[in-house]
Amino acid sequence: MSLDVVTQELAARAAEHDRDASFPYDGIAVVHKHGLLTATVAARYGGEGAGLARTVDILSALGAGDPAVALVSAMTLFTHAAQARHPSWPSHLYDELLAESKAWPALVNALRVEPELGSPARGGLPATAGRRDGDSWVIDGHKIFSTGAVALSWMAVWGRTGEDPARVGSFLVRGGSPGVRVEPTWDHLGLRASRSDDVHLEGVRVPLDAFVHTPGGRGADLTAWNALGLAALYLGVARSAQDWLIGFLHERTPASLGRPLATLPRFQAAVGEIEAALVSATVLVRAQAAGYDAGLPVEAGIGKLVATRAAIGAVEQAVALIGNNALNRRNPLERHLRDVLCARIHTPQDDTILAAAGQAALSQYTKEHTP
Amino acid sequence: MSLDVVTQELAARAAEHDRDASFPYDGIAVVHKHGLLTATVAARYGGEGAGLARTVDILSALGAGDPAVALVSAMTLFTHAAQARHPSWPSHLYDELLAESKAWPALVNALRVEPELGSPARGGLPATAGRRDGDSWVIDGHKIFSTGAVALSWMAVWGRTGEDPARVGSFLVRGGSPGVRVEPTWDHLGLRASRSDDVHLEGVRVPLDAFVHTPGGRGADLTAWNALGLAALYLGVARSAQDWLIGFLHERTPASLGRPLATLPRFQAAVGEIEAALVSATVLVRAQAAGYDAGLPVEAGIGKLVATRAAIGAVEQAVALIGNNALNRRNPLERHLRDVLCARIHTPQDDTILAAAGQAALSQYTKEHTP
Amino acid sequence: MSLDVVTQELAARAAEHDRDASFPYDGIAVVHKHGLLTATVAARYGGEGAGLARTVDILSALGAGDPAVALVSAMTLFTHAAQARHPSWPSHLYDELLAESKAWPALVNALRVEPELGSPARGGLPATAGRRDGDSWVIDGHKIFSTGAVALSWMAVWGRTGEDPARVGSFLVRGGSPGVRVEPTWDHLGLRASRSDDVHLEGVRVPLDAFVHTPGGRGADLTAWNALGLAALYLGVARSAQDWLIGFLHERTPASLGRPLATLPRFQAAVGEIEAALVSATVLVRAQAAGYDAGLPVEAGIGKLVATRAAIGAVEQAVALIGNNALNRRNPLERHLRDVLCARIHTPQDDTILAAAGQAALSQYTKEHTP
Amino acid sequence: MSLDVVTQELAARAAEHDRDASFPYDGIAVVHKHGLLTATVAARYGGEGAGLARTVDILSALGAGDPAVALVSAMTLFTHAAQARHPSWPSHLYDELLAESKAWPALVNALRVEPELGSPARGGLPATAGRRDGDSWVIDGHKIFSTGAVALSWMAVWGRTGEDPARVGSFLVRGGSPGVRVEPTWDHLGLRASRSDDVHLEGVRVPLDAFVHTPGGRGADLTAWNALGLAALYLGVARSAQDWLIGFLHERTPASLGRPLATLPRFQAAVGEIEAALVSATVLVRAQAAGYDAGLPVEAGIGKLVATRAAIGAVEQAVALIGNNALNRRNPLERHLRDVLCARIHTPQDDTILAAAGQAALSQYTKEHTP
Repeated sequence: MSLDVVTQELAARAAEHDRDASFPYDGIAVVHKHGLLTATVAARYGGEGAGLARTVDILSALGAGDPAVALVSAMTLFTHAAQARHPSWPSHLYDELLAESKAWPALVNALRVEPELGSPARGGLPATAGRRDGDSWVIDGHKIFSTGAVALSWMAVWGRTGEDPARVGSFLVRGGSPGVRVEPTWDHLGLRASRSDDVHLEGVRVPLDAFVHTPGGRGADLTAWNALGLAALYLGVARSAQDWLIGFLHERTPASLGRPLATLPRFQAAVGEIEAALVSATVLVRAQAAGYDAGLPVEAGIGKLVATRAAIGAVEQAVALIGNNALNRRNPLERHLRDVLCARIHTPQDDTILAAAGQAALSQYTKEHTP
Repeated sequence: MSLDVVTQELAARAAEHDRDASFPYDGIAVVHKHGLLTATVAARYGGEGAGLARTVDILSALGAGDPAVALVSAMTLFTHAAQARHPSWPSHLYDELLAESKAWPALVNALRVEPELGSPARGGLPATAGRRDGDSWVIDGHKIFSTGAVALSWMAVWGRTGEDPARVGSFLVRGGSPGVRVEPTWDHLGLRASRSDDVHLEGVRVPLDAFVHTPGGRGADLTAWNALGLAALYLGVARSAQDWLIGFLHERTPASLGRPLATLPRFQAAVGEIEAALVSATVLVRAQAAGYDAGLPVEAGIGKLVATRAAIGAVEQAVALIGNNALNRRNPLERHLRDVLCARIHTPQDDTILAAAGQAALSQYTKEHTP
Repeated sequence: MSLDVVTQELAARAAEHDRDASFPYDGIAVVHKHGLLTATVAARYGGEGAGLARTVDILSALGAGDPAVALVSAMTLFTHAAQARHPSWPSHLYDELLAESKAWPALVNALRVEPELGSPARGGLPATAGRRDGDSWVIDGHKIFSTGAVALSWMAVWGRTGEDPARVGSFLVRGGSPGVRVEPTWDHLGLRASRSDDVHLEGVRVPLDAFVHTPGGRGADLTAWNALGLAALYLGVARSAQDWLIGFLHERTPASLGRPLATLPRFQAAVGEIEAALVSATVLVRAQAAGYDAGLPVEAGIGKLVATRAAIGAVEQAVALIGNNALNRRNPLERHLRDVLCARIHTPQDDTILAAAGQAALSQYTKEHTP
Repeated sequence: MSLDVVTQELAARAAEHDRDASFPYDGIAVVHKHGLLTATVAARYGGEGAGLARTVDILSALGAGDPAVALVSAMTLFTHAAQARHPSWPSHLYDELLAESKAWPALVNALRVEPELGSPARGGLPATAGRRDGDSWVIDGHKIFSTGAVALSWMAVWGRTGEDPARVGSFLVRGGSPGVRVEPTWDHLGLRASRSDDVHLEGVRVPLDAFVHTPGGRGADLTAWNALGLAALYLGVARSAQDWLIGFLHERTPASLGRPLATLPRFQAAVGEIEAALVSATVLVRAQAAGYDAGLPVEAGIGKLVATRAAIGAVEQAVALIGNNALNRRNPLERHLRDVLCARIHTPQDDTILAAAGQAALSQYTKEHTP
């Protein structure tokens, strides 16, 4: 099966879900049908054991079709990848998830961000807490930006225990549990179908072994997965925008010109700029993902930064080139623009990446000059 | 009366009209109430006779409040400015317009763009035509991007006569005439309330003297008005975005920081970049408008180019700085971003401006070196 | 007299002085001959009393001819401008300077920067000190970046007195005084003929009244003069680069093309970009200078920032456009590039400007929201 | 042997050769000593048979030490690489070159550019011609931009035969042949020690078999070698600039700050930007070189474009960050800036790359949509 097929199947309904801000159940079913939703399940669990390089290709293809579907799928793929590298789910629960995943598209996501806290990637303790009550944790909390909330089979709710001292980790909560309420707050410029809504937990009860230690909210260190996987997703969006632009330039033949816009040097050079941005970012992200799979150190944040800028810049250049038509909502480019602008909002953000890259480069000197 | 008051009155309902893509009748009424819709009526017609510098200030203030209202108002202001400089409307029709303008907000716009033609600014003859029938012209045609169509008192419909040879000019058509049909096609990323819909004319009948010669579709050469007026409009949008950003940075006090974001050097420098962009573009546009009013030659296209880039860049920087919150549709910045992205689509477009500026600079040399 | 003539006279020998890093005595004589070196002497002292707007035009013309001459001249012009606004020189010494200025080009500069201190614009006390000895101050110190040192009639040496508490101000020292030694350390990428050398003062003796209180090293607050005057100087450099580029594009007729490069749309658009950058920065700097002369508040730092970026960007674009020929040292563009790159090094520097602009914009909010 | 050692040995004298514009015989000897000058000699000729990936690493290391040495070495490496892939030199002449290469650093370069023609990469026939005279060609011509001319063992002089029809190829000329005259015209902003002088050929006599068919002037298609090899060279320059910057930021401890500049967030973020640019360009160039070696199609022009922009941008950012000190000629950063600015002048140039990339992307569509 070629990933192109998946892209096309998703693209067919992306505009509709964007307009309605409706969850793309059908798109998720497509991903499931092609077996991509469990691609990162480890071989020892009977899975394909896809590494980051393969995941990057998958997410780029999904992103080119429908980035909302891609984002929801990414969260599930990252959960399986984390369990493959550093198991945190108890065996019987993960077995349950795997069994379910065979039957239907079982979605998982880590719910991390809270209203008061800013993003947990920037430090701080969660307000969401589980107090012990016999054989259960009873959880109260409020999570925001919970991608795919309405359709999750499992929520890994980042929180602390009511013990002294408190432990911090994740409560593994069934999507439909009593006390879990999804509030449809998501109303964004782009990725509208991702339904990254608020989730309220009020007296939600889970067994004791459903509290697991998950650094970073998910288990293994998934910094590189998150950075490069989402970078690839938005490069997919930009590729779709470029494809549309190329088609437009071929089909548009102004009467005064007598031949397609694609024949004009000015447009060729502009497409060349877009191509240069996307090719170089794609090669970079793929090379870093392959390096990561080979156990090499990679500066994945830089990959995300460069790819994000390239993707946003490419779509903005396409818009600037086309003028009025580019911003018509009946035109997919308008949607691609709104979607790609969301690339910057995922952690790690640009300022964090640049500070880290600068400190790393500067500290190299310190190491070399310390006797 | 301060223009700030007008800005605030318009801002109060801008979000609502954007969301509904509904025509801002109330906003136009506000502009009318403050006497701004006829500011450019010549003194000899009993008006204020505002020049371009004053118009630039007005449009900037309107744009900061609601750019859709500003765009619709601009078209009316430009029509009066053209009549002031180079009368093309027959006296009795213009008198009619003035009388009406005293009673209520009488909107006028030139309908120029046609589906097959691309923009008339790039050359070509209109397909819209009036054939003579006794004392009337009978007009058939189809216009697109007709800003404010649904609410226009008068439409100056750019077209040709059915004579041999054909003459090209404008048919002055009453908004509600039989045969005029507004098709609600406008569905754009930004300036949604401007209702720049399609207008179909089918057998529309006007008296013979309602056909006037109007170079560029409006009468006098309004290149500089169009360029600098719309530049100012979008600088107004960017100012609103900056104001919102500044408020956000003062009010946002992350627990981990213990003081507002506004105190951080990184945010101060970023606000400084935005300020530099907007101050310099504003000074440029005002200086060019004042120069124009003083009869000096000004390269207004350059003013538009620089102001457009500054406005778009400023809002994009604000969005990048704020992250997830910036793209939430409940947040005005999201709307400002969508609105400001429309700055590039008005003629003259960047490539045209740059080609003209380059040719002018290059031809200077030729003049100096020709014996 | 047209300023163009001065530009041409200076341009004739600029390349030679650049190559030799020799002080342009002849260029300074040209400026003196045309009366421009004393243009800012106040009317009450018998001068022309040029304001900042006129000074900006002068410095732009000088910069287009030879920016080293322009920089040295600027320092003299700023000293006269300071005395005009807020006299700090004792009358008899200033009379002496004026008398001398009639006879020959009397150059003055403030020597401020010291090796240990960084720039005084960023705070700190001078190490240079004068101890009292009878009717004299006896001065010891070391100044760097002393533009035009070798040719100065007067040096306003920023320093402190040996009193308790020390006073900070300027010692007015004759250029040729015993104990003053100019060390030829200046060896820069650009502005090589400005001879911004080190000056050593060893037991230099001046009368008691030659110590004057000069805030900022010069007297009146010359922040705007410094910012806009030097901005204009580098815009002059960029204009010369553009002129050369335009000539090159007209004269270069590749055999394979059969007509000059100037006829190619790609080159026209590139010249258009340069024109847009220079026109907008020039209008901005002139408008701010006129505003300053009219007593309005102007954000001169922003003018410098924008003009500096425009000038550097314009020359870099010209270089990129021309390729190998652009970097040949026999070609003036190579020199213009090296000169214009010096634009960033003058105070206030970009980061300082942006921080100040950001803080000012942010504090506006605080003012409006404080009860 | 680590390439770092070579970098350091070259760096030791790079400033001196730059200042004197003297050919770096000692630097070339260093490259020879380490066996790098013949790294690309094919295994079947007894060489190491280095591919493009290895060559990219070598040129990056040489460029970091002395880019003039690197450029001269690159030309020799490319000649051997061409012979390895598509032999054009007659065996006995190439054997001669190889024997010589064991004894001392035998340099080879293709002399291509002519005064009238512009670069041959843009089309056109050479004016340089060899007329047949018995068993010899007698060559007359004039070549410019002949890198390393003064030290070449062999010159592959691109020209045409005096036959009808003329054949176009290269005459293999011994560096010291009678009639070969090197005119020291090279006087550039950067890469001053590369001595890319004019070469005049006046009645130069070579045997008949010294005329060879060499598409592109060198034999095999070396487009990717040229693009990626030179890209790596300038990335090396930029790395040296970054290293210097990092050292400066650690060592500079302003009294008013009390700790090194390296501790300031503003400088860390700026170093992060430079690091991001250089890491991403380096990964891209290496990935493309490895892809080329693996027989995959690579868009090497895009690699050059991105790397060139990254290298120039990185050094310019470093200069802007440091201010006055950065432009002092006693400071290596000043030299790195001048050197890196030469990155743009090598073919293929940016506009050619962008046009090609755009046409390729656009033609993809045509292929897919042609029945």
